[in-house]
Amino acid sequence: MNTLNKLASADGLWTGLRLAPEAAPAVPENAQAAIAVERGTIRWVGDAAAVPSAFDTWPRHDGGGALVTPGLIDCHTHLVYGGQRANEFAMRLAGASYEDIAKAGGGIVSSVRATREADEATLFVQAAPRLEQLLADGVCAIEIKSGYGLSLEHERKQLRVARQLGQAFGVTVRTTFLGAHALPPEYAGRSGDYIDVVCREMMPALAAEGLIDAVDVFCERIAFSLQETERVFQAARALGLPVKLHAEQLSDMGGAALAARYGALSCDHIEHLSAEGIAAMREAGTVAVLLPGAYYALRDTHLPPIEALRAAGVPMAVSTDHNPGTSPALSLLLMMNMACTLFRLTVPEVLAGVTVHAARALGLSDTHGVIAAGRPANFVLWNLGSAAELAYWFGHRPARTVVRQGRIATGGAR
Amino acid sequence: MNTLNKLASADGLWTGLRLAPEAAPAVPENAQAAIAVERGTIRWVGDAAAVPSAFDTWPRHDGGGALVTPGLIDCHTHLVYGGQRANEFAMRLAGASYEDIAKAGGGIVSSVRATREADEATLFVQAAPRLEQLLADGVCAIEIKSGYGLSLEHERKQLRVARQLGQAFGVTVRTTFLGAHALPPEYAGRSGDYIDVVCREMMPALAAEGLIDAVDVFCERIAFSLQETERVFQAARALGLPVKLHAEQLSDMGGAALAARYGALSCDHIEHLSAEGIAAMREAGTVAVLLPGAYYALRDTHLPPIEALRAAGVPMAVSTDHNPGTSPALSLLLMMNMACTLFRLTVPEVLAGVTVHAARALGLSDTHGVIAAGRPANFVLWNLGSAAELAYWFGHRPARTVVRQGRIATGGAR
Ligand SMILES: [Zn+2]
Ligand SMILES: [Zn+2]
Repeated sequence: MNTLNKLASADGLWTGLRLAPEAAPAVPENAQAAIAVERGTIRWVGDAAAVPSAFDTWPRHDGGGALVTPGLIDCHTHLVYGGQRANEFAMRLAGASYEDIAKAGGGIVSSVRATREADEATLFVQAAPRLEQLLADGVCAIEIKSGYGLSLEHERKQLRVARQLGQAFGVTVRTTFLGAHALPPEYAGRSGDYIDVVCREMMPALAAEGLIDAVDVFCERIAFSLQETERVFQAARALGLPVKLHAEQLSDMGGAALAARYGALSCDHIEHLSAEGIAAMREAGTVAVLLPGAYYALRDTHLPPIEALRAAGVPMAVSTDHNPGTSPALSLLLMMNMACTLFRLTVPEVLAGVTVHAARALGLSDTHGVIAAGRPANFVLWNLGSAAELAYWFGHRPARTVVRQGRIATGGAR
Repeated sequence: MNTLNKLASADGLWTGLRLAPEAAPAVPENAQAAIAVERGTIRWVGDAAAVPSAFDTWPRHDGGGALVTPGLIDCHTHLVYGGQRANEFAMRLAGASYEDIAKAGGGIVSSVRATREADEATLFVQAAPRLEQLLADGVCAIEIKSGYGLSLEHERKQLRVARQLGQAFGVTVRTTFLGAHALPPEYAGRSGDYIDVVCREMMPALAAEGLIDAVDVFCERIAFSLQETERVFQAARALGLPVKLHAEQLSDMGGAALAARYGALSCDHIEHLSAEGIAAMREAGTVAVLLPGAYYALRDTHLPPIEALRAAGVPMAVSTDHNPGTSPALSLLLMMNMACTLFRLTVPEVLAGVTVHAARALGLSDTHGVIAAGRPANFVLWNLGSAAELAYWFGHRPARTVVRQGRIATGGAR
């Protein structure tokens, strides 16, 4: 995987740019802007008419009037897993029941089995084209969760591959340990025992290996209880790891309020989030991560409480929730369209949802999500008239130039 | 636009292919297959173990085990128009009413205005990147309707640009005259007079110029009546032009039964199609064109009668309905996912819906929609494990090689 070797350095002065709203908080909206990049870091961003003379002699990159956004951020994915479940998708459409599919070895256990059977090289090769699809939309930072290994050895594989992908593709990867994603078959009926292993064995070992940036739990009737969730949060706190939560997707478990008490970075899904949950999240500064791909694919009809989140001022992020079962989504731009179409987010909200608020959901507020001096050079030049066009078209892959970690990649429809 | 000059000839023997189900009716499913192409035409397709010795010395193209489908067909689009309506999309999300938007000059009249103001070169340049997006999904034939000009001069421009796009991109374009799309502002309150102009002036002139492959009407309370629709169909019949219909999208107008009486190629949308309409379509061999992008974007909840269409054996096609107002969709693969997810089409149904049935909806059954000897070489090699994966992932642009009109284009995520 020599992807990076092909890419040119973005160092120099970028001119001919139109900044998207809020792209660079220090610069007036709609300014003809310029960005100076030095050794992969943004040195300066501002009005094109006020470029400091020190940059006059730098190599130029002509943006040609392109619209510029910060690099997009996909803040909730399960990108690394063995196999895929297209066959199960086809069976369900052909009329198979969940029982039929379970009998045929389908469902999440099939992803667990395939993940356990795969070695790191195999997991890498399978995840790489999926990551390429997401990167093609201008993604510059991505979260990747474990949770299909469900044992120390296999969770480690997933997280190691996540790190390897970040290295190979030159993209910021945040790893999230989701050992408490599902009860592995060998612990059937002994969920407390499994949570013991997650907290006492897996989490400390993987943290010691530097593989955990955050800890997540799937808190739901079909997964883990509120009490089990809290045990995982306590273990994370003891290790100094930030937490987040798959919360209130199918029912109101009170998970969001619990997560907020532990200062969670984010609560994700939240279709059934209560007023108390919203208040707790606002208090704690926890981001609400909206996952319209899963809502769409599951044909869910219970909308997350967007109006109440908006009224409370809880920051909302938008992500693919890429996973092989409930959201085989491979485009963050499509998620922007779905968040607008299905959840009625406004264009400024959805833009913040894949940039500044997504950064916050990953604990990356100091380095990602806006274009500002001192940050790594992550920004995208779009051949589009306005930021609204990012969300208006659906199924597009517009022509664009991505500056990712200070390197230049170009692409579009082809 | 020198797109075509860059492309290599597909002449030679293609080996290492896995045919998708029904891709080549003459060849057993799952056969290791080969395709022989000579001067842009398929000479032979069959089992790789039975390649006639005459082709032994031909240049080889190694498919590397790729999955092969016929070239995809997007059988219902409004691809050529001036401007776009991203701003209106943003305004609606920000709370603007339809009245607000109308006051701001929005809605279909804004597309009519922008189309009338644009010359052919401008319309071409604006439509070209949209066409490139669709072609990137392996589309080898596409329908393009007029209907934003609404006068002889401006409808002509749209249809001429449609033909120019086909030439420039080497893709089969079928033009559909949709003069009866909306009542132009200058005919407010005089819809009969406008239909006179459509039938007596516009249609004969544009047909004489070879610009009309089929004639379409938007039959709906907010557009044209059943009686007006029939007048257009009569005019088309007099000119020997096949017809199709935007039917029963918002209400049951009885349009499908009328269209079937005129031997329509297709009835499109059909969310409110009646049992009588289905029976008439079956009798006439009319294709039901399903447009899940518009259903999705309009947040429609009234499903087309899929089960009844299936039971009646009415062929179902699937298309983008690309248009700037109700379906700014730029991916036929995404429409496949939406047809499965939202309409519950099976994988074989949706595959037929973008190949063999879509060809029939365009009157192209003799040349497109399947891979067979004597047809122009239009097929796609996908780097996917199974045909189900085309519809399972959403928002993807998988790696593929498109053979379009005997020329080779490659591409993928980037
Ligand atoms: Zn998830
Ligand atoms: Zn249409």
